[in-house]
Amino acid sequence: MRTTGDTRARILTAATELFRRQGYTATGMKQILATAEATYGSAYHFFPGGKTQLGEEVIRASGAAYQGLIAELFQGEGDPAETTAQAFTGAAQTLLDLDFADPCPVATIAMEVSGTNEALRLAGAEVFASWTEALAAFYGSRGIAEPRTTATAVIALLEGAFMLGRASRSTAPVLDAAPAAAAVVRAAAGPPSVGG
Amino acid sequence: MRTTGDTRARILTAATELFRRQGYTATGMKQILATAEATYGSAYHFFPGGKTQLGEEVIRASGAAYQGLIAELFQGEGDPAETTAQAFTGAAQTLLDLDFADPCPVATIAMEVSGTNEALRLAGAEVFASWTEALAAFYGSRGIAEPRTTATAVIALLEGAFMLGRASRSTAPVLDAAPAAAAVVRAAAGPPSVGG
Repeated sequence: MRTTGDTRARILTAATELFRRQGYTATGMKQILATAEATYGSAYHFFPGGKTQLGEEVIRASGAAYQGLIAELFQGEGDPAETTAQAFTGAAQTLLDLDFADPCPVATIAMEVSGTNEALRLAGAEVFASWTEALAAFYGSRGIAEPRTTATAVIALLEGAFMLGRASRSTAPVLDAAPAAAAVVRAAAGPPSVGG
Repeated sequence: MRTTGDTRARILTAATELFRRQGYTATGMKQILATAEATYGSAYHFFPGGKTQLGEEVIRASGAAYQGLIAELFQGEGDPAETTAQAFTGAAQTLLDLDFADPCPVATIAMEVSGTNEALRLAGAEVFASWTEALAAFYGSRGIAEPRTTATAVIALLEGAFMLGRASRSTAPVLDAAPAAAAVVRAAAGPPSVGG
């Protein structure tokens, strides 16, 4: 028998799936509730802030999940540049496994609503900051100079490569970004380059 | 007096502005036509394919404009890594000048519709490919190894940094990405790294 706890979780799962597949704006409460097999009454009981509250919770829950993934992928005593490149190679495989659907709704929602929905923009900004912090903690622990700057650039590279990969239905941009990300980490780790 | 040529251009300009400010899905034909001071009759005369055709034309026109900007920014005989870093610094200023509105509708539309509108996904993919080609031509002319791979990574880095910058209403991600982009170019230009 379904409990009320189930209903809340089902609504969140349905919203997460629909937001990442078709975007936030294109997704209506009606479709979320039909997918979750929930009623309007239960939706507004659990999410009195409506679709914006659902958007915020989806962003924060996905953000926390990916922060955990970052902590899991970025650890160990190997070359941090190699660890970074391997995370990108793994991300390319994820993109392929998902048939180029966005694995994570945060970026899509952030792009859609950065200019129009301040609550969701802020939730996205907090998530990106939490990822940067998790990655910077790893780089800092491995003696990388300016770990925050490096972490920001690596996350930007991953997000941008995902965007290009989804648009072209190809893993090539994410695979191309793997050695580039390693180069960014190596430049921060190594002796000053003679090139510039 | 307004001519029919004016009407077509006004509709395209209005659609471009609205798509980049609030996204493709959130923008209806009604709002586009009100902003353009145009009628439904003229819209379907010039754009019989409706909003999807408008989306495609906006993506292609913006894509061509930015391809021209890439050709303009990436030239000259200076250090190509420095030229790349300067382009990022300039992009950060653009983001600030626009009060963190997306300067370009291509990425937002690509993120929104990659999974749901094949015509627009393809238009976005063609635009990203044209940018990569323009940038690869520059890197190739400057003797960078694997110019396409390098160009793809640099464009991914710029797009991702813009996304983080818009979400956080800060130029920091784009400024952080500037030395990272230079490092990517330097790694492709220089002798093999000893790091890995």
